[in-house]
Amino acid sequence: MSLARTRVQEFCARFGLRAPILQAPMASASPVALGVAVANAGGMAGLGALQMSPAEITGWAEGFRAGSNGAFQINLWAPDPPPRRDPAHEAQVRARLATLGPEPPPLGDGPFLPDFAAQCEAVLAARPPVVSTIMGLWAPEFVAELKARGILWICNATTLAEARAAEAAGADAVIAQGAEAGGHRGSFTPEAAEAQLIGLFALVPRLADALSIPVIAAGGIMDGRGIAAALTLGASAVQLGTAFLRCPETGLAPAWADGLAAAAPEDTVLTRAFSGRLARGIANDATRAFESLAPAPYPLQRVLTTPMRTEAGKANDLSRMQAWAGQGAAMARAEPAADLTRRLWAEAEALLP
Amino acid sequence: MSLARTRVQEFCARFGLRAPILQAPMASASPVALGVAVANAGGMAGLGALQMSPAEITGWAEGFRAGSNGAFQINLWAPDPPPRRDPAHEAQVRARLATLGPEPPPLGDGPFLPDFAAQCEAVLAARPPVVSTIMGLWAPEFVAELKARGILWICNATTLAEARAAEAAGADAVIAQGAEAGGHRGSFTPEAAEAQLIGLFALVPRLADALSIPVIAAGGIMDGRGIAAALTLGASAVQLGTAFLRCPETGLAPAWADGLAAAAPEDTVLTRAFSGRLARGIANDATRAFESLAPAPYPLQRVLTTPMRTEAGKANDLSRMQAWAGQGAAMARAEPAADLTRRLWAEAEALLP
Repeated sequence: MSLARTRVQEFCARFGLRAPILQAPMASASPVALGVAVANAGGMAGLGALQMSPAEITGWAEGFRAGSNGAFQINLWAPDPPPRRDPAHEAQVRARLATLGPEPPPLGDGPFLPDFAAQCEAVLAARPPVVSTIMGLWAPEFVAELKARGILWICNATTLAEARAAEAAGADAVIAQGAEAGGHRGSFTPEAAEAQLIGLFALVPRLADALSIPVIAAGGIMDGRGIAAALTLGASAVQLGTAFLRCPETGLAPAWADGLAAAAPEDTVLTRAFSGRLARGIANDATRAFESLAPAPYPLQRVLTTPMRTEAGKANDLSRMQAWAGQGAAMARAEPAADLTRRLWAEAEALLP
Repeated sequence: MSLARTRVQEFCARFGLRAPILQAPMASASPVALGVAVANAGGMAGLGALQMSPAEITGWAEGFRAGSNGAFQINLWAPDPPPRRDPAHEAQVRARLATLGPEPPPLGDGPFLPDFAAQCEAVLAARPPVVSTIMGLWAPEFVAELKARGILWICNATTLAEARAAEAAGADAVIAQGAEAGGHRGSFTPEAAEAQLIGLFALVPRLADALSIPVIAAGGIMDGRGIAAALTLGASAVQLGTAFLRCPETGLAPAWADGLAAAAPEDTVLTRAFSGRLARGIANDATRAFESLAPAPYPLQRVLTTPMRTEAGKANDLSRMQAWAGQGAAMARAEPAADLTRRLWAEAEALLP
């Protein structure tokens, strides 16, 4: 058996999969139906729980288990220190956003995010086979809780330094997040995101050579060719986000789904316009509005853009929508997620020795 | 035979190769000895002739033929309109450079580059099997001259739009230049370079699906894994630059060679500091000096930085050196180029079905 197939086989055995394909835990696009379809086709479902209440996390896990006994991961962002406040700058951002949509809300003093400790409790109570972090590590005490329960931990990394930190902290696998990826960059230091844009051709072998835990490649992987190429570079599995966005189960806004099909790689941009953290999405009026004005820090910018994003969603208006997209967007297929998962792995297997 | 192997076989037959590996025509690092070693191992040699006189081009080709009857390409940059002059800004750039090295020369009125028409004449007279362009297309009359002589044309592309333009203009193959690549970005419009940074995972399949001419992948490909992955994504061959920089035949400044071995992907930056056109190299004092001041346009910045670069080279001082490097730099091996070429292809073949 080839080295790549051996890596896949070991990964699938450890993570309870029949195909080495993880559906990315996309915070705005991971409904139960998508996860169930992926898991029942042998891949790993993913829940992006960042903005969910404990009850919503519990509800998702119950819903998933009603449809599948397959594998799933629940993802949270490692928390940041509270954002630095700058009322004058926030007023500028608010004025800029008012040119694009309804008046942004007053920010007040927060909290601006769901209670992280309560989310973590809900995650443990849901007993997922896998949890994952992006933007940083779990605290050691929480890692101990995971280990005690036999829950595996996958940690996102954008550099080898981050991946090594994850391995040292007890991660069971790392995501190698290539610069091609859609959605948020996972750099542990928010300000470093722009300087840590490494393509998968350089990132995957670098991590695979240095780590003893498996590497999961993510970013720009859209079909069997991409999966086989990532495994050839040294990955043990792949994580796909944009590739699943046009599946009917995802229920994406039609303008976003159509935008993906039409998006050349160079139509995507890295922007802090929507959340205050760097992310890749389709360039539009909202991203351009923050080329000449720095957005507020995360998560203030996310709170401030909520009315615009809500209105854009209702109006199906791509020009102001938070339309995350990786550089391979145009290769995403509008296909049921189970069929897609099975087809992708069959295509990839045919390309491997 | 697998599709990837069939593509390779057809490419090698058409371009006269035994291995689908092109040594990138690096303008500052393509001595005869390197090309001879690569070609005699079955790959394609490359001469970056941008800054060479007609006599130097002729001399390189004669030297190459004395050592090898293999394949080689001669590369030129498609010429730009004359740079826009801004004496006040040029004075700022000159003052900034004077903090890093000797006083920059007065620019005068030019010309700032060798005579392009005379270079083209010398290229035709050298009758290389292959010519290549970066930064744009050949003029139709010159393409006709190439076709009349049976000289093949490879054109660098950073987007599908550029690749389609190349195919329509008569190119026989395109380079898919990924964002991972070291050295200059080849975007046809200089100002667009920052917006056309597409990773190979997205770029190679996009070009391979849309074109009828072969795609050669470049950027971050450092070993057999990278070569096999690129071929799996749809490429017919690969072009490697950074991977050959530490070969003894290249004769790189020792500080640059050591810098490659030590460079993490995130230690490289995209900068206009050395030439005025965007390029990836090792971050240093010179690149940082132009984070807060825009460099002069190409090729004025190149002329202005000549004393600094010359002094840095003599002093073996990486802090001011133009040290081009792709994101895979640390994987470059200090190994004779013929051994490297043969080893890379053997490693890649073992990973292909």
